[in-house]
Amino acid sequence: MCRWIAYSGTPVLLSQVLLQPKHSLIDQSLHSRMGVETTNGDGFGIGWYQEETAEPAVLRDISPAWNNRNLREIARHTRSGLFFGHIRASTGTAVQQSNCHPFRSGRWMWMHNGAISEFHRLRRDLALAVDPSLYADIEGSTDSELMFFLALTFGLTEDPPAAVARMAGLIETTADARGVPLPLQMTVAVTDGERVWAFRYSSEGRSRSLYVSAEVDALRALHPDVSFLRELSDETRLVVSEPLGDLPGAWNEVPENSYGVVQPGESALHDFRPEYAGLPPSGR
Amino acid sequence: MCRWIAYSGTPVLLSQVLLQPKHSLIDQSLHSRMGVETTNGDGFGIGWYQEETAEPAVLRDISPAWNNRNLREIARHTRSGLFFGHIRASTGTAVQQSNCHPFRSGRWMWMHNGAISEFHRLRRDLALAVDPSLYADIEGSTDSELMFFLALTFGLTEDPPAAVARMAGLIETTADARGVPLPLQMTVAVTDGERVWAFRYSSEGRSRSLYVSAEVDALRALHPDVSFLRELSDETRLVVSEPLGDLPGAWNEVPENSYGVVQPGESALHDFRPEYAGLPPSGR
Amino acid sequence: MCRWIAYSGTPVLLSQVLLQPKHSLIDQSLHSRMGVETTNGDGFGIGWYQEETAEPAVLRDISPAWNNRNLREIARHTRSGLFFGHIRASTGTAVQQSNCHPFRSGRWMWMHNGAISEFHRLRRDLALAVDPSLYADIEGSTDSELMFFLALTFGLTEDPPAAVARMAGLIETTADARGVPLPLQMTVAVTDGERVWAFRYSSEGRSRSLYVSAEVDALRALHPDVSFLRELSDETRLVVSEPLGDLPGAWNEVPENSYGVVQPGESALHDFRPEYAGLPPSGR
Amino acid sequence: MCRWIAYSGTPVLLSQVLLQPKHSLIDQSLHSRMGVETTNGDGFGIGWYQEETAEPAVLRDISPAWNNRNLREIARHTRSGLFFGHIRASTGTAVQQSNCHPFRSGRWMWMHNGAISEFHRLRRDLALAVDPSLYADIEGSTDSELMFFLALTFGLTEDPPAAVARMAGLIETTADARGVPLPLQMTVAVTDGERVWAFRYSSEGRSRSLYVSAEVDALRALHPDVSFLRELSDETRLVVSEPLGDLPGAWNEVPENSYGVVQPGESALHDFRPEYAGLPPSGR
Repeated sequence: MCRWIAYSGTPVLLSQVLLQPKHSLIDQSLHSRMGVETTNGDGFGIGWYQEETAEPAVLRDISPAWNNRNLREIARHTRSGLFFGHIRASTGTAVQQSNCHPFRSGRWMWMHNGAISEFHRLRRDLALAVDPSLYADIEGSTDSELMFFLALTFGLTEDPPAAVARMAGLIETTADARGVPLPLQMTVAVTDGERVWAFRYSSEGRSRSLYVSAEVDALRALHPDVSFLRELSDETRLVVSEPLGDLPGAWNEVPENSYGVVQPGESALHDFRPEYAGLPPSGR
Repeated sequence: MCRWIAYSGTPVLLSQVLLQPKHSLIDQSLHSRMGVETTNGDGFGIGWYQEETAEPAVLRDISPAWNNRNLREIARHTRSGLFFGHIRASTGTAVQQSNCHPFRSGRWMWMHNGAISEFHRLRRDLALAVDPSLYADIEGSTDSELMFFLALTFGLTEDPPAAVARMAGLIETTADARGVPLPLQMTVAVTDGERVWAFRYSSEGRSRSLYVSAEVDALRALHPDVSFLRELSDETRLVVSEPLGDLPGAWNEVPENSYGVVQPGESALHDFRPEYAGLPPSGR
Repeated sequence: MCRWIAYSGTPVLLSQVLLQPKHSLIDQSLHSRMGVETTNGDGFGIGWYQEETAEPAVLRDISPAWNNRNLREIARHTRSGLFFGHIRASTGTAVQQSNCHPFRSGRWMWMHNGAISEFHRLRRDLALAVDPSLYADIEGSTDSELMFFLALTFGLTEDPPAAVARMAGLIETTADARGVPLPLQMTVAVTDGERVWAFRYSSEGRSRSLYVSAEVDALRALHPDVSFLRELSDETRLVVSEPLGDLPGAWNEVPENSYGVVQPGESALHDFRPEYAGLPPSGR
Repeated sequence: MCRWIAYSGTPVLLSQVLLQPKHSLIDQSLHSRMGVETTNGDGFGIGWYQEETAEPAVLRDISPAWNNRNLREIARHTRSGLFFGHIRASTGTAVQQSNCHPFRSGRWMWMHNGAISEFHRLRRDLALAVDPSLYADIEGSTDSELMFFLALTFGLTEDPPAAVARMAGLIETTADARGVPLPLQMTVAVTDGERVWAFRYSSEGRSRSLYVSAEVDALRALHPDVSFLRELSDETRLVVSEPLGDLPGAWNEVPENSYGVVQPGESALHDFRPEYAGLPPSGR
């Protein structure tokens, strides 16, 4: 299990979001309140977009986020309007850079909190369902990376919600065939550098926590004294595994089995259901 | 702050002591109950003696103990009758191998839990008090390593309790001169490969936790069903920052301001007081 | 490409073989003479057997061998009669612990120098040929680990030469189907803790270098002044990517397309040919 | 010994200078042509300035530069008009982040290639000469970091050439008192974010290699076809341990015992001599 944060809006120093809040991702790496584990110390990753380059930059390391100096350096000197941060608590797979989130493919980034139950039994079936032209790019050994490759297989770059729905459907279908009940537990964030899609879903209907920040203009009205809010555009949004502080009214829980889109203009919230129809037969 | 464990007695696989107990050092690295911090994930170290070589072997790494595979490999394949284990929670100094315990000098090993208050202000004075012939061997930046070098300066290899007393006295004297109150907080273990000295002391008289295992024959009588106890010699002893399990009668708290000696034959417990007389003037 | 060393014979401190020779594995990590790369600094691994445990211990790290202190500590304090050492020069795959050799399965260890040409294009086909019950244990992303899993699939633990022959056959057959010429380049060592099999083969018939030490009694006669030789049993043998020193008569090149067995009693040398018959269809 | 590069001029992606040249710093980490060692794989560091923050950002890691993915990520996504890059070949001191260059103090950065002879014997004397208010900030164990602290002690931020001259003088005086002949070997780069001072000096008068790029307008006239040159301002300069490529006329050797200043406007070259007068007595 893990914790993550996605930011979209007015360009800020990464440190303003990743390091400075009272219950920042750094604090969560030592003292998560809502995660399955208190400690998320099995590596971390951040990824960010800047205007000058098409692809996001990604910094990943196997050390705990709380004691990594390079993370602090980069966060304090990098300004971005769209970035991801992730801290990892391994559920058994190796602690190695290629198992750290976010994962990247071209302009796209993906990060995940959760797990596929009995992944060891399902791993081969799921790997065979990955598009053969993509398979060789798998570098690590996590369920999370495999979920990304399945989503890519199912058209993530064309229609993210549909691709994630088919990914979830495939996992549940495959698990069912192997006798693994309620296999999927996920909060996922995915982005192309312009929009962020955030999914909250679990087969059992009791998903890991996920919150989205309230609208900035409403927050400014509530808290005219919080200067940080005055710097932010109305469209600025954070999606997080757990709230970064105690500001009343600042955080709304993302409902079970739903996904949101953070984008220029209006954000949106929709129901999420796995898609079982038209799945390719998982390789067996 | 940190957690540590010292074992002396019947040769066992390190894993039997370091990995297998319910509240092992590995478990303490994630969920310390009595430490200042819950998480001790800023590196670890183990050191052990085997008959064939004079010096102890030392394995140290900056990764958390709980996810380090090499630690598990070595612990599962190494048998020793005298070994140290340490997990680190940095109080600000760098996470680097040279700041991991145990520290070694020839046949001697040293590890520490605690801190010197306002170490930044006292560091130079204390470093100058180190024997000039030893100074250049200081590799890291911790108070703990500097304490070791001070103890070596004061004759650790001749008379450990006297050297540690003078070390504590120097730290308190130096702190006093700089206006730093109640500077020393320590539990320290030191060994030459035959005996283990364990100290519990703090300037304020409220020291970090320290426990010693009860006598094995008494434990065997209490717990005839615990097979592990039958493998151990009567003289086997553990000194630990916190108990490794809940076996009733197994652990005795080491009193405030005292030190014990674990050795072939009778173990012993003594009062500990810093020694202020005859200190060399700390270099200023 | 990489460099490796396999030792079988009189138990010695690992350091006597891994650290002390003039052109030791440590020296080769900086200054390989016969390797494709001069520098082999992308991680290392050692694995060794001791009587007390069934499985070998394995220490692997992503740092260069030449500056890793834990390697020196373990090598100087560990005695074994059968051990492997490997230094890695990545041909593009990630520098992570799970890509370091030796690989282990139960009592078995495997290490490799060489490469599968255009592995990226062949990876999926080869992975699908791995026994489905083994697939999920693949942790890394190298051709070398996949070769190990293929060999296990083909009965490595029953008949190593036959399994390696079928592995080589499968790789060549698969490559042929994909239009990849001369795909396999390998020197491989594999052991069950009692015998060591060492293979030298390449599709093009120009294989990476491989040497075996001469018989100890002959060496003693040649060099009565070399004291180290007097400590070694007659059956002691080393198989190495390149000679560890310049002792005349000490090293014999292993012929192209052959394999040797180092074992209690007589060692043996045989021809090696890939086996193409009866291969399972590689998954496509 | 080590290799380094300092860039000042038109803001470019760090990768254009650090990664892309034929004989880039990455290439030098594996195949240095002019360094004492071929391999510079004991860690690396980069430091860069951007307008938005006063201090430079510094990324340092103990892995070799050639296989570090975070270095590539940051270099490909970071634009700066003044940056340092350094690759390390340890001369014995620990491979740890705090021993990696560049070192930083406020707005200032420092990096070094070379060594102090018999540093182990001189370390304490030199450390005692560091301003007591700075001493406690020493984090590592290298001669290079200590040289930086000595230069800071002697007024680096006020007058860099004078401070470096006094630092060199102190080292030579101290060495002389200890009977260490010809102690100093250095090429040093230091910057405050606006100007870069580069020193080439050795007690024996045979200093490590150092080159400065020719004037850009002259280079453009020589090589009208090299498009990269057209992007650079006339004042852009590189100072490097060894040339990054074979472009005729592109590199001028910095003379023995001299220093240069790269700055907005005219660059300048001066003689360099250690300053022995008015040195504080080195602490003994």
